[in-house]
Amino acid sequence: MRIIILGGDGYLGWPTAMHFAARGWEVLAVDNYLRRNIARETSSEALVEAPNLVDRAAAFEAITGKKIDVKIGDLADYRFMESLFRDFQPDTCIHYAEQPSAPYSMKGFEEARLTLKNNLDVTFNCIWAVKEQAPNCHIVKLGTMGEYGTPNIDIEEGYLDITHNGRDQKFLYPRQAGSLYHTTKVLDTDLIWFYVRTHGLEVTDLMQGPVYGLSTDEADLDDALLPNFHYDDIFGTVVNRFLVQAVAGIPLTVYGKGGQTRGYLNLKDTLQCVELAANNAPGKGELRIMNQFTETFSVNELAELVRVAGSSVGLDVEVKSIPNPRKELEEHYYNPKHSGLLELGLKPNYLTNDVLVEMLNKIIANKDQIVPARVLPRVVWNK
Amino acid sequence: MRIIILGGDGYLGWPTAMHFAARGWEVLAVDNYLRRNIARETSSEALVEAPNLVDRAAAFEAITGKKIDVKIGDLADYRFMESLFRDFQPDTCIHYAEQPSAPYSMKGFEEARLTLKNNLDVTFNCIWAVKEQAPNCHIVKLGTMGEYGTPNIDIEEGYLDITHNGRDQKFLYPRQAGSLYHTTKVLDTDLIWFYVRTHGLEVTDLMQGPVYGLSTDEADLDDALLPNFHYDDIFGTVVNRFLVQAVAGIPLTVYGKGGQTRGYLNLKDTLQCVELAANNAPGKGELRIMNQFTETFSVNELAELVRVAGSSVGLDVEVKSIPNPRKELEEHYYNPKHSGLLELGLKPNYLTNDVLVEMLNKIIANKDQIVPARVLPRVVWNK
Repeated sequence: MRIIILGGDGYLGWPTAMHFAARGWEVLAVDNYLRRNIARETSSEALVEAPNLVDRAAAFEAITGKKIDVKIGDLADYRFMESLFRDFQPDTCIHYAEQPSAPYSMKGFEEARLTLKNNLDVTFNCIWAVKEQAPNCHIVKLGTMGEYGTPNIDIEEGYLDITHNGRDQKFLYPRQAGSLYHTTKVLDTDLIWFYVRTHGLEVTDLMQGPVYGLSTDEADLDDALLPNFHYDDIFGTVVNRFLVQAVAGIPLTVYGKGGQTRGYLNLKDTLQCVELAANNAPGKGELRIMNQFTETFSVNELAELVRVAGSSVGLDVEVKSIPNPRKELEEHYYNPKHSGLLELGLKPNYLTNDVLVEMLNKIIANKDQIVPARVLPRVVWNK
Repeated sequence: MRIIILGGDGYLGWPTAMHFAARGWEVLAVDNYLRRNIARETSSEALVEAPNLVDRAAAFEAITGKKIDVKIGDLADYRFMESLFRDFQPDTCIHYAEQPSAPYSMKGFEEARLTLKNNLDVTFNCIWAVKEQAPNCHIVKLGTMGEYGTPNIDIEEGYLDITHNGRDQKFLYPRQAGSLYHTTKVLDTDLIWFYVRTHGLEVTDLMQGPVYGLSTDEADLDDALLPNFHYDDIFGTVVNRFLVQAVAGIPLTVYGKGGQTRGYLNLKDTLQCVELAANNAPGKGELRIMNQFTETFSVNELAELVRVAGSSVGLDVEVKSIPNPRKELEEHYYNPKHSGLLELGLKPNYLTNDVLVEMLNKIIANKDQIVPARVLPRVVWNK
């Protein structure tokens, strides 16, 4: 079975490439280093510099004997995208190739334009490359729980059955995102939903929550195989950021009241989820949407978990509320469903004290690399 | 009061420019002739060739003494868009500047890409030019009733109050469009809705049905001021197309069963509606959405109206069903609300026999110009 991974150098893309290669899939990983370039331009480099994708793949092959093919190029260029699908003929495509930072997308005009253009163009090109060159390829698209925002009603998995004035209709669940990045994912969903209905594509759209962790079966084999671990305000997700703050002796920065609640998952579970999705295609002309997270936490709850884990390795962790740089509800109802992936067989790795301590120890080993200025919010859109 | 009209050379843009100029507004009309270029490339030129926008504006000024400023340029280029808002400082912006043809957007990859890119880029640039250069400008955006598709429940005006598992939430009304063009309008709405909530823009989004007609107070003054009257499968809306078929002795081509029902309006009412919108800004941080049509008809009903009108001017009109080139329901529930514009003061011009006969007579005067090959569907997306 052949799988192409768009955005194969990313925090999720690289572990995903290793995961499928280790399980016998023929893997093609594609990236243009957009995230690395943005990270350098915004002084948001990862905690440990990762080898480039070609070198990572070579290291992986040297250690495991398994091969990951690599192509470097811009998937927003259709001729490049099309050539990959024509030549590789993937059975499955995992699409991570998006500018993934909400704060970056809110920085200014150029950053917003890049985010809109890159994300829409890659999704559009992916749809057309499948349609024209590999019509039986199953697209596994990474969406985000952020597409839904924080509505006052239960969040279903992708769709909502509505009764109105005595009549019924099933719709895509209405979406209302809190950043331009998240809004581009809403546009992706609209675009995919249209082409699924019109051209019979086969797509799984995974609405993922924030991911934490730097351990996977393959990443643990060697330091050269580590995921990109970001702790900055641009690319760092909240758990990773809090752990670095704990190690660096910086108070954990809770944005505003800290009641913001989201669904989280372990990096290991992202790998399980995309594998489950890849092995369970929904059928031609179907858009299956699943909510991809394992448990929900408020920011205050996360801060407390990190404080406790810090204590257990001798760190004295302080928690401090700062003005919220984001425009979001700080206290809200949140009840998102997430049974789809569990029904397919997901076995969650929860956010236990052991998991946090293991992460803390890896960060402590790289404590000298931490640049404190990167961890505080540098982009504000709540003026 | 200053008004900028994006897409000022269009079927709606040009009559709108004249309408506001005649009523004392300072008008700047902007276009890059995209529709004219596409019309030529696809052999879909209008029934009567219109003077270019500069010449039209000169003719209008010669006849009425009223001025319309014109700029020719590509609004998908942000530097151009920004300079217009910086220099002109409009109070109101009417945004028509989109590739408006559903069949064109479904023709192939290049046409789809152009539609997506043009429509999203212009909307994005318009949002940012207002935000950065004219933050008090009220944007009047033309959406389409096609954004809603044909759901099995009543179509409300833009929003829907949903009760789910005993809790309530107001959402944007869920959208599901039937062509890529209509889908780009859905993306526009998502984008505008995000920036309204985040940056406090002031926007009226008009969900318009298919427009018919070629008469307005100003257009009737001189042939040089006529709107672009398209009867082809690319740009021609169904009423205009049927009337030309009636005159040319071509059977009226009903797509499939002909039960497709939509909300229609007279070109004169488009002008009333945008003026009512311009004079009733919703307030900063508000997105007011109104459904812009005056009455609903099925395709079969329209064909019958045109047949009867044809008889009354001595035309023997045949009606013929042909295989539907589009992917759409041919029989469906359709109950869209449209009270918002009536409450603001809209006085509808209905599709009477007199209106149809007046149009038939104008078409008969240009009968020699009709190219029959343009009137049958040349793009099929229902394979």
